[in-house]
Amino acid sequence: MKALRVANGELSVAEVDRPSVGDEALVRVTTSGICNTDLEIVRGYAGFEGTIGHEFVGVVEESSGKPDLVGKRVVGEINAGCGKCERCNNNDSRHCNNRTVLGIKGRDGAHAEYLTLPARNLIEVPAGVADEQAVFVEPLAAAIGITEQVEVGPDTSVAVIGDGKLGLLCAFAMSLRTQNLIIVGKHEEKLELAEARDIEAVWLPTIGKFDPVFDVVIEASGSESGFALALDMVKPRGKIVLKSTFSGKPPWEAWRVVVDEITIVGSRCGRFEPALKALNDGKIDLADMISARMPLSRGVEAMAEARKKGVVKVLLKM
Amino acid sequence: MKALRVANGELSVAEVDRPSVGDEALVRVTTSGICNTDLEIVRGYAGFEGTIGHEFVGVVEESSGKPDLVGKRVVGEINAGCGKCERCNNNDSRHCNNRTVLGIKGRDGAHAEYLTLPARNLIEVPAGVADEQAVFVEPLAAAIGITEQVEVGPDTSVAVIGDGKLGLLCAFAMSLRTQNLIIVGKHEEKLELAEARDIEAVWLPTIGKFDPVFDVVIEASGSESGFALALDMVKPRGKIVLKSTFSGKPPWEAWRVVVDEITIVGSRCGRFEPALKALNDGKIDLADMISARMPLSRGVEAMAEARKKGVVKVLLKM
Repeated sequence: MKALRVANGELSVAEVDRPSVGDEALVRVTTSGICNTDLEIVRGYAGFEGTIGHEFVGVVEESSGKPDLVGKRVVGEINAGCGKCERCNNNDSRHCNNRTVLGIKGRDGAHAEYLTLPARNLIEVPAGVADEQAVFVEPLAAAIGITEQVEVGPDTSVAVIGDGKLGLLCAFAMSLRTQNLIIVGKHEEKLELAEARDIEAVWLPTIGKFDPVFDVVIEASGSESGFALALDMVKPRGKIVLKSTFSGKPPWEAWRVVVDEITIVGSRCGRFEPALKALNDGKIDLADMISARMPLSRGVEAMAEARKKGVVKVLLKM
Repeated sequence: MKALRVANGELSVAEVDRPSVGDEALVRVTTSGICNTDLEIVRGYAGFEGTIGHEFVGVVEESSGKPDLVGKRVVGEINAGCGKCERCNNNDSRHCNNRTVLGIKGRDGAHAEYLTLPARNLIEVPAGVADEQAVFVEPLAAAIGITEQVEVGPDTSVAVIGDGKLGLLCAFAMSLRTQNLIIVGKHEEKLELAEARDIEAVWLPTIGKFDPVFDVVIEASGSESGFALALDMVKPRGKIVLKSTFSGKPPWEAWRVVVDEITIVGSRCGRFEPALKALNDGKIDLADMISARMPLSRGVEAMAEARKKGVVKVLLKM
């Protein structure tokens, strides 16, 4: 089968063996989405080599553990715990020390014709959610997951920093909870996607200094300057949600966190069910997030496309 | 009157006018304590010039607003809000944008024969609490205040990093809530103060790597390496409490906060009442924290003493 792989820092579409299913489930991928993490992995993030990709939708072809899944259209939780440790037993395999992560850590990923995951990781996609919406479930779940960790209600003022894919999804997810919401970004064409949903968009070059008035600031730029801006915008005793992985060890003004008694909440993944429900209920429609669709055979080109300014989501079709 | 002052980065005991009381209260200071923040201010922290010092106990000599305070022995909340803004009206003058802070910001401090504070900032000291215990109320309140922001119960595992005055007080405060507690520090003679209270003390040079098993890690060293150690010790989805102000902009591994979904809680001050109660009930006794007592006239020498290795608290007597 074809797979988009990283080896020695080089990206290529290679012909490889179909993965052996063992006691897991075999999924025929129909659509996958390119995430910034994929781009970072090519640059060396996480030290991963193998098939990249972790956003997908597909159809189950084999499943020894849960045979009723066969033939079902599914998305999948990307963390596969060992199933034996305390954290796995507490239903928290996302933080299992021995976990593998689809296309990120110890497990070949989703930019391929087939992938395997434990059957328990797979969730059926409702018929009302098209493949090109379902493929966003993983990052949308991560965005909606913020509300599992931080209370956001109609009176909560929220600012999202960063207008990349994740920042936009965070803003869309927050708009389900509060209208007291802005998104700050550098890309006018991406901010238009927020404005189309009646979310106030602030183009960074046009503004001076923010007052520290926001209850919650979601940092989704992954940049040192984004975090510094979050410190400027959050009010004393407010919360900053760190949503993007940062590269390296950026400097930070830790003293301000102490003096203003700010809480910083690291937030990575979220449960898939609320994201599937929001898509199925039509509360979130992500069609305008798709900038390009390409066949898997053009995966290298698709990755280059995903890096381009103004491009939001690039999908691979198998 | 005499006052220990900083001007142009120089420390001296100067003869100055007694402060005019206006609509506040005039307190004759009897004992004050030297805090690390005082030492930092001499090095330029907060850009403060004037009389330093914010840990004190004294007797009210004048109070136009609350005349019944006159003659009372008091300690005082060090943040004086404007009394007019939304935060002050919400009983949160600690975060008023226009606040002054005793001996730290816009207001002469406590290493002096007299100070002024709004009468509403003063709290009477119970007769059972001696001056040399009451003078610890401000930092002890800050330590106990952690439990206002983070839940700590008998089953919560807590590690305190840093064996300076604040770290020790944090450990003592946490020992009122949980026995599942360690303190990590570099100074054997300071760690003995924790061991004397049956708190497990770990001398940093003797240990290798910590496993990430603690529910709550309290960073009270104010150092980059202390924060890095906190990241090593806290478990996924655990909490790091930042208790010390850091100087400059230290680098941090922000990505770990995201991946392990850690919460960082900035924590500065606490309410005085629980601290006074713990002292009055005899649950905390701080007599062995006092390394030296000196008259205010020897204030410059006392500051030098407070910087010495192995010295915990230095008190000034007026």
